[in-house]
Amino acid sequence: MTVALVGAGPGDPDLLTVGAARLIEEAEVVVHDALIGDEVLQLIPPRTERIDVGKRPGRPVPQENISALLVELGRQGRRVVRLKGGDPFLFGRGGEEALALQKAGVDFRIVPGITSSIAAPAAAGIPVTHRGASAAVTIVTGHRQRTEEPVNWRALASVGGTIVLLMGVANRGEIAEELITGGLASSTPTATIESATTPNEVVNRWRLDELAAAPICAPAVIVIGPVAALSVCDVLSVSELAAS
Amino acid sequence: MTVALVGAGPGDPDLLTVGAARLIEEAEVVVHDALIGDEVLQLIPPRTERIDVGKRPGRPVPQENISALLVELGRQGRRVVRLKGGDPFLFGRGGEEALALQKAGVDFRIVPGITSSIAAPAAAGIPVTHRGASAAVTIVTGHRQRTEEPVNWRALASVGGTIVLLMGVANRGEIAEELITGGLASSTPTATIESATTPNEVVNRWRLDELAAAPICAPAVIVIGPVAALSVCDVLSVSELAAS
Repeated sequence: MTVALVGAGPGDPDLLTVGAARLIEEAEVVVHDALIGDEVLQLIPPRTERIDVGKRPGRPVPQENISALLVELGRQGRRVVRLKGGDPFLFGRGGEEALALQKAGVDFRIVPGITSSIAAPAAAGIPVTHRGASAAVTIVTGHRQRTEEPVNWRALASVGGTIVLLMGVANRGEIAEELITGGLASSTPTATIESATTPNEVVNRWRLDELAAAPICAPAVIVIGPVAALSVCDVLSVSELAAS
Repeated sequence: MTVALVGAGPGDPDLLTVGAARLIEEAEVVVHDALIGDEVLQLIPPRTERIDVGKRPGRPVPQENISALLVELGRQGRRVVRLKGGDPFLFGRGGEEALALQKAGVDFRIVPGITSSIAAPAAAGIPVTHRGASAAVTIVTGHRQRTEEPVNWRALASVGGTIVLLMGVANRGEIAEELITGGLASSTPTATIESATTPNEVVNRWRLDELAAAPICAPAVIVIGPVAALSVCDVLSVSELAAS
């Protein structure tokens, strides 16, 4: 009878929440994005209907269609899990889907997930806040949309603290330039984490003025600020930890 | 043989990660803070040693002592879980504990948790980012520490997007004033979520210039920005959802 908008976390199935794992197990239909980790998708029981609405290049499913699908499935009275990478409300467009469901009178719930904006730096040994280095973290999208509220990058350069840039690979050069113009040092430590918490994870460190030319592939999380110079742990999944 | 620095999430045991739940079950010693939810603490098996290092008013355990304790326990070769509210690396001082363990040569791992800075707004039906309203979220502490990097509140007012203030109850008036001086409208929507995701949760909405006089109790998460006017869901835990 209810649609659950569920955060799937960054990819590692051990970083699903207990509630999310149970809802996936009990779902009748799972509607998921392209960015969900394979190991998480393998938790969907074979009997459960799966609908992939992944916004792949060249074959995008418009957001309105996804919202309409959720409304339709919800009205059928089925147990629907809408599985979204990371957290539904942090660049997950969960707010739009929730508003559509609310408007249609369909009962729904939000289940937060681990956001890659914090898990990706953690996997690289980077604490996004750290005493003496950072008392704030700004999580911001580098993806430009005409309808989105603009971000004042030059003001952001003056806030202090850590900047975590999501979906910023394409515009990384322009953003780095704006931040430097706003007052960040060209030498500001910068880390890139590609395919965070998956077996393909790659971590690299740069100066901010090297970011434009840095050879990195999406999806990547970009961390800018003094903490990006820290590395307080090796990358090891929870599964490996349990086995050790 | 390993110390795991584990995020316990905001309080609801369904918002623990699958990995965290397993590590708690398998731990020989759990070292925890005061802010861990009771239902999460109940998951610690009776046979497991529990050490409460909660920094309660009047009886604080200095951070250096906690780090030293973790080093000592790790050197004993026991399976240690250091359970921290929210996420270990987001105002959890996990970076300091990790550095102490690294320096001592004790093997350790970080397990991210759901941060209350996103889960608390979600429980109140507030998406921290939302197309057309916010393309960035800054998570910042309102707690003053001489050793912390200063936050430029006036610059933050110009960034655009959402501000999530943690540990900001005591200094909320001063911070609101700085933000208004920096250019935020006095009428900027502001939401306060006390005791988020617990049965005692209280959500209220204010104008930014009402925040100073607003009667709120710590611990509270304060959300400032256009999204704070949204309310896209009712508060219901995952447990209730599974039962419905």
